[in-house]
Amino acid sequence: MEVTNKYVAIKAQVDGAPEESDFEFKTELISLTVKPGSKDIIIKNLYVSIDPYQVNRMKTLSDSQKTSEFAVGIKPGEVIDAYGVGKVVASGNQEFEKGDYVVGLISWGEYSISKGVILSKLDPMGLPLSYHVGLLGLSGLTAYAGLFEICKPKKGEKVFVSAASGSVGNLVGQYAKLFGCYVVGCAGSPKKVKLLKEKLGFDEAFNYKEETDLNLALQRYFPEGIDIYFDNVGAGMLEAAILNMNLKGRVAVCGVISEYTDTGKRAAPDMLNIIYKRISIQGFLAGDYMSLFPEFASMTIDHVRTGKMHVLEDVSIGLETVPSAFVGLFHGYNVGKRIVQVSED
Amino acid sequence: MEVTNKYVAIKAQVDGAPEESDFEFKTELISLTVKPGSKDIIIKNLYVSIDPYQVNRMKTLSDSQKTSEFAVGIKPGEVIDAYGVGKVVASGNQEFEKGDYVVGLISWGEYSISKGVILSKLDPMGLPLSYHVGLLGLSGLTAYAGLFEICKPKKGEKVFVSAASGSVGNLVGQYAKLFGCYVVGCAGSPKKVKLLKEKLGFDEAFNYKEETDLNLALQRYFPEGIDIYFDNVGAGMLEAAILNMNLKGRVAVCGVISEYTDTGKRAAPDMLNIIYKRISIQGFLAGDYMSLFPEFASMTIDHVRTGKMHVLEDVSIGLETVPSAFVGLFHGYNVGKRIVQVSED
Repeated sequence: MEVTNKYVAIKAQVDGAPEESDFEFKTELISLTVKPGSKDIIIKNLYVSIDPYQVNRMKTLSDSQKTSEFAVGIKPGEVIDAYGVGKVVASGNQEFEKGDYVVGLISWGEYSISKGVILSKLDPMGLPLSYHVGLLGLSGLTAYAGLFEICKPKKGEKVFVSAASGSVGNLVGQYAKLFGCYVVGCAGSPKKVKLLKEKLGFDEAFNYKEETDLNLALQRYFPEGIDIYFDNVGAGMLEAAILNMNLKGRVAVCGVISEYTDTGKRAAPDMLNIIYKRISIQGFLAGDYMSLFPEFASMTIDHVRTGKMHVLEDVSIGLETVPSAFVGLFHGYNVGKRIVQVSED
Repeated sequence: MEVTNKYVAIKAQVDGAPEESDFEFKTELISLTVKPGSKDIIIKNLYVSIDPYQVNRMKTLSDSQKTSEFAVGIKPGEVIDAYGVGKVVASGNQEFEKGDYVVGLISWGEYSISKGVILSKLDPMGLPLSYHVGLLGLSGLTAYAGLFEICKPKKGEKVFVSAASGSVGNLVGQYAKLFGCYVVGCAGSPKKVKLLKEKLGFDEAFNYKEETDLNLALQRYFPEGIDIYFDNVGAGMLEAAILNMNLKGRVAVCGVISEYTDTGKRAAPDMLNIIYKRISIQGFLAGDYMSLFPEFASMTIDHVRTGKMHVLEDVSIGLETVPSAFVGLFHGYNVGKRIVQVSED
């Protein structure tokens, strides 16, 4: 049986801030049966992840993109692969069969055809399917690995998280609080600040847009200095955090959203601070920490089931909402993990 | 017995590039006998170390300086402590006695009065006393700890060293070559480049002043990319190195001489490269690695005695040469470790 698969594509490489007009919907005819001998897995997409890093894949290929298996360039007109949850429609791969839920690399489209690479069978474990996109997906693993493996917190240490109401930041803050750290987050609206303090249990939170001097803001919230900075934004916030760090401070950098769409915007941290305070800055990608998945998932599910951790999701419905959801990330419209529900289960 | 102790002092805080006129020679009367009950150690200074980092201590106190026990501010008119080798004239401390050689914190003067803090008895082990100032002092330990402990090289990895004919850089390059790495250094004159290649055994070396595009220069010398960058300079060289680093590249930063005297000059590395290539940048100070001293000294002495390692020293004679020696560091006048011989043994 053949069906029309609608998918989202870029019209041309996107080198600045993305706009909805950079995208188009295309269709292709695909077969919902697998040809004899093929090992393809045909998936009906249910929930897809909307992540800022995709904008880097849309750019004219840069050196960074070429050197990373996690950032293969996206070509105009082509299907865009993305993390998500789907259901197998047909499979030539004996590890998957019709009706299985799967999680991993699917696409910003109605259907995906997978070779089984970066794809696993999913046991929803009684949790909403969307939880497996963000909380128990790469956003969650990024937060967990970055905080525990890279920053190696000690109880009582002072943790600063930027983009703290975002998909990764909100989890970093919650993990750090549950672990016994003092946690301050920054976000871009009074509503988000309220959410961080009142719902997620951050010790303090502030709206960076209301601060004229980030250095002074951090001095105010960290009178005893910052031990760990989980950087999601780069640029001026990273510079200010370095100025306020304690001896042997650690910075984990998994994203620099403020620099993605503006290459002129860069952090120029004070290297003297980095030397004298023996600060480390470590770039990382969650994909390197897949071995931590079992302990990460186990701890996280436990916290969620016992109500200690809140799940922040921002889900819109319909493939048509993918461009606006994606563009909105760069304007701070999302609260928590941005997900699009493509189809009902 | 009282003598006149001549010492070097700054006339006022030095906030830009230092000049000889920023310094003055002062004298004080000191006793060469120890008062009953005093634990002072009176030392005749023989060789003193001339290091770029001292300029940071001469500045109007910055946040970095305040947070580091290694960078106590220097006040105008006062004695400037510095690493070096001396001989005990009198001692109220039972661990030291007259005639002992000592190494550690003495001063830019003819005599030092020490409380025994950061001071050890020195067994010259048949090596020139000056070797204990640089090669077997903090310069050597900085090179050793930065390369082996922070960058953790593997045989065959590609190592880039800036300020490679300097006190630390020349040793980093020699250690890395002896360990089995591919090593490229940069320096600021054709004579230094020749020395690196012909005497110290670097695989390649280049004069950064002759390069109009540091990124292209590094692409030329590292067609397979850089695994380790030992940064002694900061600013543009750090940015170019990041662009040319391989996956999981490591940067050790122990000094940023180009940024010391020009706070407007800063590295603004591409954070996307840092994330996608999972690069780490680690600031460090040798003082944190004193526990490595025995293995460091043993390996280094062995290499020097067997002729595998060359000792690059730039020694001038007389306390009067301290200001010019120090100022010269910022103009690249030194080759190897800059030392002043204050007195004959």
